[in-house]
Amino acid sequence: MTINDRAPVLAALRGWLDASALDGLIVPRTDAHQSEVTAPRDDCLRYISGFSGSAGLALVLQDRALIFVDGRYQVQVRQEVDRSLFDVHHLHDDPLDRWLGQHAQRGWRIGIDAMLVGGSLYDRLVTGCAAAHAELVVLEADPFDAVWRDRPPRPLGAIRAMPPQVAGETAAHKRARIAEGIRQRGAALLVETLPDNIAWLLNVRGSDVPMNPAPHSFLLLGADNDLEWFVDRRKLGNDLDAYELGSVTVSPPERFLDRLAEATAEKTVVIDADFAPQGVRAVVLAAGGRIAPQTSPITLAKAMKTPAELQGFRDCHLEDGIAVTEFLAWLSSEVSAREQKGHPLTELEAEAQLMAFRKERAGFLESSFRTISAAGANAAMCHYAASADTNAPIDTVAPYLVDSGGQYLNGTTDLTRTVMLGAPTEEMKIAYTAVLKGFISLMSTRFPVGTQGHQLDAFARRPLWDASLDYDHGTGHSVGHNLLVHEYPHRFDRKPNLHVLEPGTIMTVEPGYYKQGAFGMRIENQVEVVADGPGFCRFASLTLAPIDLTMVDLDALSPGEIAFLDDYHVRVREALLAHIRPQNLAFLLAQTRPAVEQREAAR
Amino acid sequence: MTINDRAPVLAALRGWLDASALDGLIVPRTDAHQSEVTAPRDDCLRYISGFSGSAGLALVLQDRALIFVDGRYQVQVRQEVDRSLFDVHHLHDDPLDRWLGQHAQRGWRIGIDAMLVGGSLYDRLVTGCAAAHAELVVLEADPFDAVWRDRPPRPLGAIRAMPPQVAGETAAHKRARIAEGIRQRGAALLVETLPDNIAWLLNVRGSDVPMNPAPHSFLLLGADNDLEWFVDRRKLGNDLDAYELGSVTVSPPERFLDRLAEATAEKTVVIDADFAPQGVRAVVLAAGGRIAPQTSPITLAKAMKTPAELQGFRDCHLEDGIAVTEFLAWLSSEVSAREQKGHPLTELEAEAQLMAFRKERAGFLESSFRTISAAGANAAMCHYAASADTNAPIDTVAPYLVDSGGQYLNGTTDLTRTVMLGAPTEEMKIAYTAVLKGFISLMSTRFPVGTQGHQLDAFARRPLWDASLDYDHGTGHSVGHNLLVHEYPHRFDRKPNLHVLEPGTIMTVEPGYYKQGAFGMRIENQVEVVADGPGFCRFASLTLAPIDLTMVDLDALSPGEIAFLDDYHVRVREALLAHIRPQNLAFLLAQTRPAVEQREAAR
Repeated sequence: MTINDRAPVLAALRGWLDASALDGLIVPRTDAHQSEVTAPRDDCLRYISGFSGSAGLALVLQDRALIFVDGRYQVQVRQEVDRSLFDVHHLHDDPLDRWLGQHAQRGWRIGIDAMLVGGSLYDRLVTGCAAAHAELVVLEADPFDAVWRDRPPRPLGAIRAMPPQVAGETAAHKRARIAEGIRQRGAALLVETLPDNIAWLLNVRGSDVPMNPAPHSFLLLGADNDLEWFVDRRKLGNDLDAYELGSVTVSPPERFLDRLAEATAEKTVVIDADFAPQGVRAVVLAAGGRIAPQTSPITLAKAMKTPAELQGFRDCHLEDGIAVTEFLAWLSSEVSAREQKGHPLTELEAEAQLMAFRKERAGFLESSFRTISAAGANAAMCHYAASADTNAPIDTVAPYLVDSGGQYLNGTTDLTRTVMLGAPTEEMKIAYTAVLKGFISLMSTRFPVGTQGHQLDAFARRPLWDASLDYDHGTGHSVGHNLLVHEYPHRFDRKPNLHVLEPGTIMTVEPGYYKQGAFGMRIENQVEVVADGPGFCRFASLTLAPIDLTMVDLDALSPGEIAFLDDYHVRVREALLAHIRPQNLAFLLAQTRPAVEQREAAR
Repeated sequence: MTINDRAPVLAALRGWLDASALDGLIVPRTDAHQSEVTAPRDDCLRYISGFSGSAGLALVLQDRALIFVDGRYQVQVRQEVDRSLFDVHHLHDDPLDRWLGQHAQRGWRIGIDAMLVGGSLYDRLVTGCAAAHAELVVLEADPFDAVWRDRPPRPLGAIRAMPPQVAGETAAHKRARIAEGIRQRGAALLVETLPDNIAWLLNVRGSDVPMNPAPHSFLLLGADNDLEWFVDRRKLGNDLDAYELGSVTVSPPERFLDRLAEATAEKTVVIDADFAPQGVRAVVLAAGGRIAPQTSPITLAKAMKTPAELQGFRDCHLEDGIAVTEFLAWLSSEVSAREQKGHPLTELEAEAQLMAFRKERAGFLESSFRTISAAGANAAMCHYAASADTNAPIDTVAPYLVDSGGQYLNGTTDLTRTVMLGAPTEEMKIAYTAVLKGFISLMSTRFPVGTQGHQLDAFARRPLWDASLDYDHGTGHSVGHNLLVHEYPHRFDRKPNLHVLEPGTIMTVEPGYYKQGAFGMRIENQVEVVADGPGFCRFASLTLAPIDLTMVDLDALSPGEIAFLDDYHVRVREALLAHIRPQNLAFLLAQTRPAVEQREAAR
């Protein structure tokens, strides 16, 4: 992997620091919307360092620079970043605020863009600077406008309407009930900076960044139902009647903070406790407003899908299941054929072929995230994305993991399958069988109304624990409706998550196991929470694709676990049978046979 | 049940309110140590209302009085409290602070003793009063000294030394490492108001209140290892050399707040985030100190038992197991014999007999909590204590639940067994089998280092959930070493608990099921966390008493569950065989036979 020379970029930034009478600049990874995927112009951290991960932070000083990344990216940062220019630190174990408290010099002035940092991180940075008698300085202007030559412009992706019959609720109705909620909370105003919340509320979808169809914008919604949307007018096209904008006031994004200041004086203002930037908080407080930090009421409303959205999820999962099963069928013959020809199939080729199958499907728009097409040791990196530099052959020696999903007009998919196209080792069988048992255990959990994700997470881990294994990531996340594949607020995680699972919640279930330098395996289905008798719920699978049993030790499965697999495969077969290409029927039938028959056939 | 007339008491209190220019008085249930069991003189809530539960709060106004209790006590409060004198409210769903915000009159002055209320509740009460333009007034003197005729004196229970070889660490060593921890946190001083933390630190045990052998006292420990203990000197006896007091300064409790004020100016002071009274917080802030609220470092150190403490737990569980098994053997013949005689055995008789067996055991001191001896519908009340009014017969129609424990010189026990001395109904079998499966599931969990209680709680519930059942209490708590049976900080609970389970942690495992008005069942063992290979832990059972299988549907158990039971019963038999009375040997052998044999024998 080549590392571009970032020295000139840092030199330019240091010149700007000098001219601005600053001793340092904090460069966050994210944008004003705390996006997981940013527009190229907002990826300042990558511009100065080369680091391409989805979370991080840098501090550029005159004589040195530091980059902070979390545990997922400790390997990647060393591959991508020139360590003669940047010292690497751990984002959580060795955080910037503590570094500032210990190493900042008395009188230092450290600049930061308050729209790029959440309130709690900002508070910690202020405390860190104060401990060292240094000062955190909120910038008046964006330094990268000055130092970034050829900085890409703000995206102007077209915004389309999501028909109310697909959303299941009109924008007017959503708006009325959210406004009523604000009123009931005793607040006057909701400030919304999360693009997916705004897209949900207004029944629109955007194209500013790939895979995340939520247009960059801001929004103010009054308890009186007054709504002002701060969005670049050019994204909307000429016919505003194509949208459910009703009495919405459309204003330029540049007006957002000024309008916020005008609207907020002496008022109680709901801002998102987790995602609102410090810049928003500062404006409200400076204007004399009172802040009510909480999970945005839109986040909560959006998480409970409408019947129409749920039907959309089911429908697009049928389409997606067809594409993925066609891909798995193709893979099952292609890998050995290409291996025999001496030109093994590669991760990038497989990724392209999967995309080709998805593009055939009705309603498919684009991927919902960058596909993880990972063979052998590459699959041990949970956030791997194949590139020309890393593009590994898919062979019959190690498992191949493919984690992918689609954005559809009526929903979003996310699934993982791990297949073994040769004979597995004993170690692989033990691990994969444990992952499968954990997957089945959580998938088949029945739980009372009011249950929260942290209560259920360990069901997916216990079979791994029994084998002295585990995985260092969450077990599942909620999913947006043709919105973000990682939607808030629900999580299956070891950490507490206080949002209750209820009918209409959409989650993923995705235990895995990763052996550094050797292989990675994960099984992931998307599910909806459904009622299961008075006071209880269960998960109903949305994903429709066979689960490869090559690496399973069937003797280690209980009758109940085998029944779960067989029932699931019957559902997959019945759903896909009429839709699959004729040449892939044999594959579908073989993969969805009862588990015991599959074992007999393999002998 | 007779309700004493509290009208004169309320009249006296209202006279005092008048004389004090107050409109109301808040009467908490607890004392300055936030004790679960209080001394009689501190039970002011019971004095004014008759309510005997372990949590609650009253507000006495001139024209009315309100009592607030939680879900556990909604039935009991209506039995014990005269509702013509008190309105009953829910402590959490309908809390006092909200009531004040909605109903307090402008200008009202509501008194409170700041030593009887934690900081967070105090803050909520201040906010509630402020919302109604009323004022929360911190009292200068204890109103009950004035209004309570014949108020019992402060307890003067003798304090004994716990030998360092039983504690496993000298008081001097404990003190040095806690002081070093305070220093490392950048603080100057630790304020300790929890009697069990003080008892642990100083290697002493007390007798101010029954069953909770931690003497009422306060303590200040400096980062420089200076220690001042605020305790009534009369509790210590004449020979101070009998204690490991070294350079400890012993001062009267009345000096505590003054000394705190002197010691705290300009200093950073560690106070317990959950248990420090508002009075402590106010003194530190008034003196110009900085507060560092956190879980007390003593709470954390105390939770990780020493090898000597662990050995003590194992030893006293053998003694306790003998007593409980003798009791269960006695019960198995006594119930039907007494039923035939037409004088059925009662809950109170059974409780007394259990105590008689415990009193025979080496090292036994007293109960660790009031025994729950509960037959039939009484067992559906999780916090039931038998009385002359409620004393039900133990019969062959409904299960009998006994939850009890002992304080021993070398540890504390807590176990529950539910036995059925006649033929169970199908409903009982379904519920008891689910409780047993949940018990076995959590007991046999293997988990990685770093796991927290909320991750494991649902293992005990899942079999109940499968049967559409659940229980509305936590699944387990940590236990003190000849200290509080409900020790902090660990819990198995649906709510988050961020304290990691590690080798040396002592817990209970106690799922149950309660059918209102019909029956209750619970199975509880005490366990220690032990290492189980690199990076993993498991639970090792401390409790040694057979688990009754009369209500178990063995066909619903997996081979692994049956193996767990059989292995456990072999351990119980081998441990108790040489110690049990000869006439009880047959019972022990029958109860600890392999489960399948027990079923055959019963046919």
